[in-house]
Amino acid sequence: MAPTPDWVKQLKPSGSQGSELLVAERAKSDIPVQKLHELLLTKEVIERKQRILAILKSEKVFDKSQNYFSGRMERFERALAREKKLQLLKRKHKWTLDEFRTASELVGEPGPYGLHESMFRITIAGQGTPEQQEKFGKAAEAYKIIGCYAQTELGHGSNVRGLETTATWNSQDKTFTIHSPHLTASKWWIGSLGRTANYACVMAQLIVEGKSYGPHPFIVQIRDMKTHEPLENVHVGDIGPKFGYNTMDNGFLLFNNVKVPHENMLARFSQVDPKTNKYVRHGSPSLIYGTLTWVRSTIVMQAGSVLARGVTIATRYCAIRRQFQDRDAPEWEKGENAVLNYTMVQIRLLPLLAATFALHFTGKGMMNLYQENQKRMNQTNTSRESNKRGAGPEETESGSDILADLHATSCGLKALSSTIAAEGLEVCRRACGGHGYSSFSGIGPWYSDYLPTTTWEGDNYMLTQQVARYLLKSARAVLKNPTPTNDTTRILSHFQSRVNIGCAFDILGSDEDIVAAFAWRASFLTFEALKHRDEQKKPWNDLLVDFYRLSKAHSQYLVIKNFYDVLRSGEIAQSTSPPLRTILLKLFQLFALHTLEQEGSEFYVSGACSKHQIMLARTSAVMNLLKEIRPHAVRLVDSWGFDDWVLDSSLGREDGKVYEDMFYRASELNPLNKVTVDPYPESEVLFKKVEGGYGKSKL
Amino acid sequence: MAPTPDWVKQLKPSGSQGSELLVAERAKSDIPVQKLHELLLTKEVIERKQRILAILKSEKVFDKSQNYFSGRMERFERALAREKKLQLLKRKHKWTLDEFRTASELVGEPGPYGLHESMFRITIAGQGTPEQQEKFGKAAEAYKIIGCYAQTELGHGSNVRGLETTATWNSQDKTFTIHSPHLTASKWWIGSLGRTANYACVMAQLIVEGKSYGPHPFIVQIRDMKTHEPLENVHVGDIGPKFGYNTMDNGFLLFNNVKVPHENMLARFSQVDPKTNKYVRHGSPSLIYGTLTWVRSTIVMQAGSVLARGVTIATRYCAIRRQFQDRDAPEWEKGENAVLNYTMVQIRLLPLLAATFALHFTGKGMMNLYQENQKRMNQTNTSRESNKRGAGPEETESGSDILADLHATSCGLKALSSTIAAEGLEVCRRACGGHGYSSFSGIGPWYSDYLPTTTWEGDNYMLTQQVARYLLKSARAVLKNPTPTNDTTRILSHFQSRVNIGCAFDILGSDEDIVAAFAWRASFLTFEALKHRDEQKKPWNDLLVDFYRLSKAHSQYLVIKNFYDVLRSGEIAQSTSPPLRTILLKLFQLFALHTLEQEGSEFYVSGACSKHQIMLARTSAVMNLLKEIRPHAVRLVDSWGFDDWVLDSSLGREDGKVYEDMFYRASELNPLNKVTVDPYPESEVLFKKVEGGYGKSKL
Repeated sequence: MAPTPDWVKQLKPSGSQGSELLVAERAKSDIPVQKLHELLLTKEVIERKQRILAILKSEKVFDKSQNYFSGRMERFERALAREKKLQLLKRKHKWTLDEFRTASELVGEPGPYGLHESMFRITIAGQGTPEQQEKFGKAAEAYKIIGCYAQTELGHGSNVRGLETTATWNSQDKTFTIHSPHLTASKWWIGSLGRTANYACVMAQLIVEGKSYGPHPFIVQIRDMKTHEPLENVHVGDIGPKFGYNTMDNGFLLFNNVKVPHENMLARFSQVDPKTNKYVRHGSPSLIYGTLTWVRSTIVMQAGSVLARGVTIATRYCAIRRQFQDRDAPEWEKGENAVLNYTMVQIRLLPLLAATFALHFTGKGMMNLYQENQKRMNQTNTSRESNKRGAGPEETESGSDILADLHATSCGLKALSSTIAAEGLEVCRRACGGHGYSSFSGIGPWYSDYLPTTTWEGDNYMLTQQVARYLLKSARAVLKNPTPTNDTTRILSHFQSRVNIGCAFDILGSDEDIVAAFAWRASFLTFEALKHRDEQKKPWNDLLVDFYRLSKAHSQYLVIKNFYDVLRSGEIAQSTSPPLRTILLKLFQLFALHTLEQEGSEFYVSGACSKHQIMLARTSAVMNLLKEIRPHAVRLVDSWGFDDWVLDSSLGREDGKVYEDMFYRASELNPLNKVTVDPYPESEVLFKKVEGGYGKSKL
Repeated sequence: MAPTPDWVKQLKPSGSQGSELLVAERAKSDIPVQKLHELLLTKEVIERKQRILAILKSEKVFDKSQNYFSGRMERFERALAREKKLQLLKRKHKWTLDEFRTASELVGEPGPYGLHESMFRITIAGQGTPEQQEKFGKAAEAYKIIGCYAQTELGHGSNVRGLETTATWNSQDKTFTIHSPHLTASKWWIGSLGRTANYACVMAQLIVEGKSYGPHPFIVQIRDMKTHEPLENVHVGDIGPKFGYNTMDNGFLLFNNVKVPHENMLARFSQVDPKTNKYVRHGSPSLIYGTLTWVRSTIVMQAGSVLARGVTIATRYCAIRRQFQDRDAPEWEKGENAVLNYTMVQIRLLPLLAATFALHFTGKGMMNLYQENQKRMNQTNTSRESNKRGAGPEETESGSDILADLHATSCGLKALSSTIAAEGLEVCRRACGGHGYSSFSGIGPWYSDYLPTTTWEGDNYMLTQQVARYLLKSARAVLKNPTPTNDTTRILSHFQSRVNIGCAFDILGSDEDIVAAFAWRASFLTFEALKHRDEQKKPWNDLLVDFYRLSKAHSQYLVIKNFYDVLRSGEIAQSTSPPLRTILLKLFQLFALHTLEQEGSEFYVSGACSKHQIMLARTSAVMNLLKEIRPHAVRLVDSWGFDDWVLDSSLGREDGKVYEDMFYRASELNPLNKVTVDPYPESEVLFKKVEGGYGKSKL
């Protein structure tokens, strides 16, 4: 392609420039951006991010200019190179774990070392004996062996007990035979396995003397340490392209009676005694209980910042983009109107902007609560083994009612928050109109990579059953003894005490009443579900839809409550200025009333508020809040502090040079423009080229 | 990569085979699949499809085996080769327009000739003089020139009046100068322009003697006919990768004072008189009015079949996939449960299954109504110019109230139906669990390509304003004169006559009452909006959210009414068997009651039905319908009759060989498995390779 001609280079966007428009937007608001930024991230994290970002930007391998153009092969190759470079940088700069994680987060793409870092090393540390940690753990730490965690199978996802891969104990030579008896036993979706790993931690059904003992972890070498070719009787590869996550080599893995020595079964909690050939259990990996709570809390908190990327991009672009005139606009405001001024755009973006803060503070609140309780319990129980998994604090066996509550409710919050984030990103993308569809918007690729979060760490639909089960249990407990032991039993007990009197929450006059109305509706649905199950004896399967709604209702209550609590807490009260407190309160109200109005019929049915107030919430309160928040929108997204390098978005540029950037990427970076085609129908050359490249297409 | 070893080839999925499971599913139902298939598509279309499919399958260039693996460059190249082959096949087999369209539809990917075929040729035919049709139209028909339709600009989407490209009349040499004064004037998103077209129909502001006459169409050559290089002072290229649609070369285009002769302005409706240098208008392209209605009706009908692909894939896979045991399952039903048996899966898939029929019949109903009225009006007005655009019948200037109604409501229906289809596809993808994320599911790539339909032919949010405007106008008319002139005034008038008495629709006892309840709620919202606008004088912008809801409510009414009317009509009554009529009625009820329950609060507020019945709709009626429809699910999707070649989905295979197909594609077709990596962090070779490929990354 010819270089961009000079006459093109001289062109500018018409009318007010994007940069001027964003300056004007920022001048309209008095929100202290830096203060809010620090409140969200802390000074320490901000400094760390900036320091590491400078290092990454200076390394050529992290150059992003071809990210959106490349096919899968190149993207994978480049992702691997980046993972390698991160390891070298980690060594060079002696990064702490936090620093390394910050670097990975800033790079912002799933990488082929991902599951080695997270699951492989953590499983050895958590479930290996000291000897196994010495042998496998150290080699893994030094990247002499590179592993993955092979649990899911082609035919089996969430249900671990249904796994088909077997590990059969051979008493003669003291080995295990790892075997895949069926095609559906093939390990599938295993991150880092497809091309990268040479070891796998394989979950397999342990069979000793004909008896099955359920799934256990085995360390299995799968590729040659030098040639990297698969070992004999191992069939391994990448599972192919996906909707996103294509920088990761999710893999498949089949074994044909592969033997591994006795020491390769991770034996901290159970093992086969090589002398007696008996299965012995030393305990169970109960730490999972706490770790999962921790992981889910981080997903809730991340959901806020994941969504904030999309909201940042869409808000900035909608502040710049002009379309049509306002029908009722006065004469002196002629010309096309900023898209962000249309209420139909505001109602899509501003509640999501509010959600970014709601989710962030909820996740943070959960993590604080978890840690505080953990600390308190550790003080009374100092003899416990320290947590080696690195992912977060560990659960005691005598977990208090508060932690049990946190564990159960974290399931629902994970489901709700990741759904809000995933679906919210798509709303942001569409709010950008046609240009949202371009990869250069930066939202689509990010959305595609985020989507699996709605499925992993518990499928969002499956999780709601756990929440419902817990709420039913709590409701039964309250009926026996109304003294509350945690927040869930508190609201259920309160509801039960008032159920014959009813309630009268003033959702438009009192923020506290908003929280109470959400508690009331969740409690109402809990006792309804209890009636269906315990009195009417309805089948579990017939109640799944009710359970889903119940979990959603309770989780929405939790977000609203957490957000409200944070706004009243010392941190915000002390560290923020009055305009900041005011706007955060408005964001709280917008998030709460918009959610309430969306779920209107449940609020009616439960009697939590009057029909009139619900109507007013929509037609008046929410619309007024949109107006009040609108002038602060750009500063509010600024306070998330995304660097342009991180966003990698034409539409979301901090300086507003939207059109220049779109044009530059298309005209200067797009490799398709190097290809000159023969446009006419007859073209033997092209047919030959295209037809040459095929395999057979049938099974 | 080593070939798949023999021990792997011998493996089968465990337990019941997918093929057996689908046979069992089909045995459970008595739905006459072929009969329903013919009812949906007609015998004629089915025969045509089969005949053309056989031709396509025999041509190597249409082999799909690498579709999901290839990067953008290869995909574009292959798509172009396929478009060329379609042209050659069209000539060879002397295909009619219908046959050619069927072939394109079966290939199922956007192709680089797309906008030449649709917009370029149609615009010349519709807006060119006989001389221009002779000159440009004939060359275009013969693919001697290949064109595109260049309207949208970088800074301007829906608002055509805001276009910046200018065409200035030069009275001296009788030419027009086409010019892009700003960067935002760059044509953008223009299909077929990026690499393929050598001509463009450019929409530009016509300027004659300093005065602007608004946007007009100009035929402009942009590339050399031999070398295919851009002409001087033309800057043209592909705009880069998108969320989908990557087989199409959407392009950008800038002009630096390019001159075209007088004859290049399409002059059927207006021209510059070369003698007087005056702008002359001969009429206006009013046929657009009718064509748009027609195009939108096809979008509504297509939305049904687009969604049906996703529902087919998800339903078949969920009938095969087993996960967990039913908690309450009796002893004799041990083992894992088919996912489709869980109500939480049913509530996501079966209403969408119902929607496929609802949308299909609604679109068909609209097209019939349109054609009948057209015919009737043509009989009274036979002197009219025949329609040359090929896209559908043409609108008379004295369009009746029925056609005006159809035109306005088609906006809302287009918005509603494409939203249901796009969002429904994503629901289907997630209902497939983890495997839904694999490209081999076939849903993700299809969803990505379909998404722009929510934006083009009128942005789905913008369109709702047009519907609301029409409804407000109709309501004002009814207040003046309650005699109905079409269906919209009929329901508004009925509502108005009863507003002080109220209503009592028995939505669980009478199907007719369901339709009436939807009409009531839409009418209620119409008069509410009218009050806000006319009495309370609220600004238009403050009402956009209300308008959006109003349009949605009215469009939902239309779908429900159309679906119901079709079920009572002669065609269904005569051509279908009792079990078929019964199941279609249940699908109608499910779609209607599920929608009603989702929008519950509007039905409460409007008083269309009782709180008690809305609650029962959810807890009892919908749940019962799911149970009743469940056994027929597989046969119902079978009746859409998608060929496996068309679906290109592992999960949706008609024969149920889900796991075999997933595995085959990963293990045998995946090119990434040909790459062997060096897995260790130190790797200068990789760094060099990866770092070599970059341009500069900054503006």
